[in-house]
Amino acid sequence: MKKNKKNIFYAQSGGVTPVINATAAGLIDSLSKNQNKYGKLLIGKNGIAGAINEELIDVAREKKTEIKKLIHTPGGAFGSCRIKLKDHKKNKKEFERILEVFKAHNIGYFLYNGGGDSQDTTLKLSEFCTTNNYDLKCIGLPKTIDNDLPVTDNCPGYGSVAKYIATSTYEASLDVASMANSSTKVFLLEVMGRHAGWLAASSGIIKNISKDPPHIILFPEIEFNEKNFLSKVKNCINKNDYCVIVASEGIKDNYGEFLAASKTKDSFGHAHLGGVAPKLSNLITNKLGYKVHWAVSDYLQRAARHISSSTDVKQAYAIGYASLNLINKGIDGVMLTIKSKKGGSYKWSVGYTNLSNVANIEKKLPKNYITKDGYGITAKCRKYINNLVYGEDYPPFKNGVPDYAKLKHPLVPKKLRKFK
Amino acid sequence: MKKNKKNIFYAQSGGVTPVINATAAGLIDSLSKNQNKYGKLLIGKNGIAGAINEELIDVAREKKTEIKKLIHTPGGAFGSCRIKLKDHKKNKKEFERILEVFKAHNIGYFLYNGGGDSQDTTLKLSEFCTTNNYDLKCIGLPKTIDNDLPVTDNCPGYGSVAKYIATSTYEASLDVASMANSSTKVFLLEVMGRHAGWLAASSGIIKNISKDPPHIILFPEIEFNEKNFLSKVKNCINKNDYCVIVASEGIKDNYGEFLAASKTKDSFGHAHLGGVAPKLSNLITNKLGYKVHWAVSDYLQRAARHISSSTDVKQAYAIGYASLNLINKGIDGVMLTIKSKKGGSYKWSVGYTNLSNVANIEKKLPKNYITKDGYGITAKCRKYINNLVYGEDYPPFKNGVPDYAKLKHPLVPKKLRKFK
Repeated sequence: MKKNKKNIFYAQSGGVTPVINATAAGLIDSLSKNQNKYGKLLIGKNGIAGAINEELIDVAREKKTEIKKLIHTPGGAFGSCRIKLKDHKKNKKEFERILEVFKAHNIGYFLYNGGGDSQDTTLKLSEFCTTNNYDLKCIGLPKTIDNDLPVTDNCPGYGSVAKYIATSTYEASLDVASMANSSTKVFLLEVMGRHAGWLAASSGIIKNISKDPPHIILFPEIEFNEKNFLSKVKNCINKNDYCVIVASEGIKDNYGEFLAASKTKDSFGHAHLGGVAPKLSNLITNKLGYKVHWAVSDYLQRAARHISSSTDVKQAYAIGYASLNLINKGIDGVMLTIKSKKGGSYKWSVGYTNLSNVANIEKKLPKNYITKDGYGITAKCRKYINNLVYGEDYPPFKNGVPDYAKLKHPLVPKKLRKFK
Repeated sequence: MKKNKKNIFYAQSGGVTPVINATAAGLIDSLSKNQNKYGKLLIGKNGIAGAINEELIDVAREKKTEIKKLIHTPGGAFGSCRIKLKDHKKNKKEFERILEVFKAHNIGYFLYNGGGDSQDTTLKLSEFCTTNNYDLKCIGLPKTIDNDLPVTDNCPGYGSVAKYIATSTYEASLDVASMANSSTKVFLLEVMGRHAGWLAASSGIIKNISKDPPHIILFPEIEFNEKNFLSKVKNCINKNDYCVIVASEGIKDNYGEFLAASKTKDSFGHAHLGGVAPKLSNLITNKLGYKVHWAVSDYLQRAARHISSSTDVKQAYAIGYASLNLINKGIDGVMLTIKSKKGGSYKWSVGYTNLSNVANIEKKLPKNYITKDGYGITAKCRKYINNLVYGEDYPPFKNGVPDYAKLKHPLVPKKLRKFK
C-alpha cells in the first residue's frame, strides 16, 4: 500500500528567515496526521539543488528531539540556495533532471518555501510537468523578511525581523540619547530591503511623538536627496540634541544607482549591497562635523529568532500546516497567503492565490504608508506593522544561549548517476 | 532634621550598558529603606556634567511607574558623558566648581557609575575633597561592557552583551550555513572591545566541537597576521563549506596600528573605531574570492536589554543596592566589586577595593583564556563566560516592543551662577 502513496518534496529557498523552519515544522506535524495519504517527506538539501543533485533528506531519520526544535530554530535547517533555474523553454536540462529525480523517488508533491524568485521556480516547474504529463502538485509556501510578495497580506518572516529592527532601534536610540550631550550625536542603522522599504519602515513603530526616534527613515522607494537629508539631520540635532537614522540598504541616488552599490551580484543577478551606513556616516561627519555611530545588522536581523514575533511564528507554522490540507483538496499551482479580516482587532487566516499572480512581482511600500516628507511612516503603516510584530515567542535556552535544532541531514540512497 | 541629612549625588559615566539603570534601581530601592539616614537622591544629568552645570535630577519627582522600569531599561536613563576631568593638581577649576555645587546642594555622598576612566574621576575627586577638607564619601560603581576593570571578578554590563554576542553569532551562523552551498561562504561580525577581547571571546561559548562556529575569533590581544588569517579562512571553508569570524574592533596589525583606525578620537583621547568588518570582508573577497556578509553591531550590542543575562541584571542591581550599605559602614574611596566563590557551582557576592587599585587600569583577556593558535577560547574562558551569561531576564513588552522607562529629568532649582 505504502508504495503507491506518493512522496512529498519540500525545500527552502533564497535568503532564510527566523521562522522558515516553523513552516517546515507545520508541514511535518500536518503530515503526521495525514500518514494514510502520503509517503515520505523528502527535503531537498540546499533547496532545489537537493532535487538536482539527488540529495534528499529523509526527515523520518532525523532525531525527533531535534525536529521538535525546528519551530524555534532560525536559518534554513535543511540548507537553502540562491539558484534561479534557467528558462525551461530555452534550456530544459535542469527541469528534466528534476523530473528524473522525482520519478526515481516517487515524488508527487512539490512544496517550495521561498520568496518571489522561488515562486517563479515553482511556477516554471509546474508548467514543465504539465507539458511533460508528469503529475506533480506544486505549491508555493511564502517566506521573505522583505515582505515584498504580492497578494498575501504579509509574508512569514517579516514580522519577526520587524520586531527585531523596532526593538534594536529603540534600544540603540536610548544609548545615543544618553551619550549625545558630550559625545555621539547620530546613530545610524542599516537594514535589509533591496527594493522595498518594509523593514526600514518597521523601525517607525517606536515613534509616538515627533521628538521620538527614529527621526529619519530612508526608504528605497524615495530618491535620496543629499542636501535635504543633511538639512534634516542638522535640524533634528538642533531640536533634540541627537538624531537616529534607519536606512534601507537599497536607497538610490537621483541617477537611480544604489548608494552602496558594489561590484558583486548574487546568482539571481541582484546587486549585493551593504555599506550604506558607513557611507552616510562619512557624509554626515564630513559635511556637518557630528560624531556618528553606525551599525549594520545584516544576517543578525534575518536570524534573530530570540526576538521573534509570536504572530509571525504562528503564521509561518500555519502556512506549513495548511499546505497539505490544500493538496488534500486537490488544489495545485498556487502559493499560500495570509489573509487578514477587515475591521476590528487583527484576525488572519490562510488563503491561496495562483502562482502566476505572485512569481517575480515585488510589492513595495504603498505611498500612503510613507509620510509626505518621505522620512517617516503613517499611522496606517504603523497599524499594519504593529499587528505583525505582536507577541513574544522565546526559544528555550541552554547554558545561556538558545537551544536550536542540530540536524544530521540523513539522505535517502541515490538511484541515479551524478548530474553534470 | 531632614536638613542635616546629607544628599546623595549619583551619575552615570562613559559608554552605557543594557543594565546600568539596574544599578540605579538598586540604589533607589536601597535608599527607600534608609530614608532616616540620607537626604535626597540627586542624579547628575549627563554624568559629571550634571555636577558641573548644576543640573541635578530630583529623582523623587520622576513618575514612580517609570522609575520601576529602570531595572529593565537599557542606555543611561539620566544621561551619561564622555568627560575626563583635567588633572586637579594642574587645573582645579572643574573640581572647585563641583565642590561649590555639592556644598550648595548639601551633597555628602558621591556615587559614580562607570568604567576605568570614571573610577579615575572618582579617585581624583576624593583626593581633592580630602585636600580641601570637604567631607565627601566617594564610591565607584563598576560598569562596562568591555569587562576590563581589574580586581572585580567581572563588570556589570558584560554578561548581557556577551549573551547578545553569543546568541547573535549562533543565529547568524545558522543563516550562513544555510546559504553557503550556493552563495555566501563567510559571515563576519565586528564587536566592541578596544583593547580587551572579552566581548569577542563571548562568541566562543557556542562552539562545542571543532567544526562549530565561530571558526575564527580575532582578539586585540593577538597581533593580526594577514597571511595566517587568510589561510585559516581558506582551510575552514574547504573543511566546513562556510566560515564564521568574530572580530574585535580593536585588532591591530604588526605595527601596533588599529586595523580600523580612523582619524577621530573621543574626548578621553581614545581612537574612535569601527570598520574592521568591511576591511576584513574586502580582504577576504579580494584575496580568496569568497562572498562575504558582514555585520557591525555597534550600539545594538551595548543596548540589547531584550536579551540580557539575568545574572548580569542581578549583579548590576546588587552593586547599586550595596553602595549605601558600604556608606552606612563608613567606607569611603572604594569601588564595589563582584567576587566569585572558588570551586563548585557559580556563587558571587559584592565586595570592594580601593579606587587606586582600579583607576585607569585595563584588564585584558588572560593568556590562558585564548587557545594556542590565537583564534579561539579555552575551556577555562568558556566556563568563566558561561556563568555570566546564565539566565534570561526579558523586559515587559507593549504593542510588540519593549516597554522602557521614559523619564522627565526634573531638575532641582539652581542656586549658583552658570559655570564657564
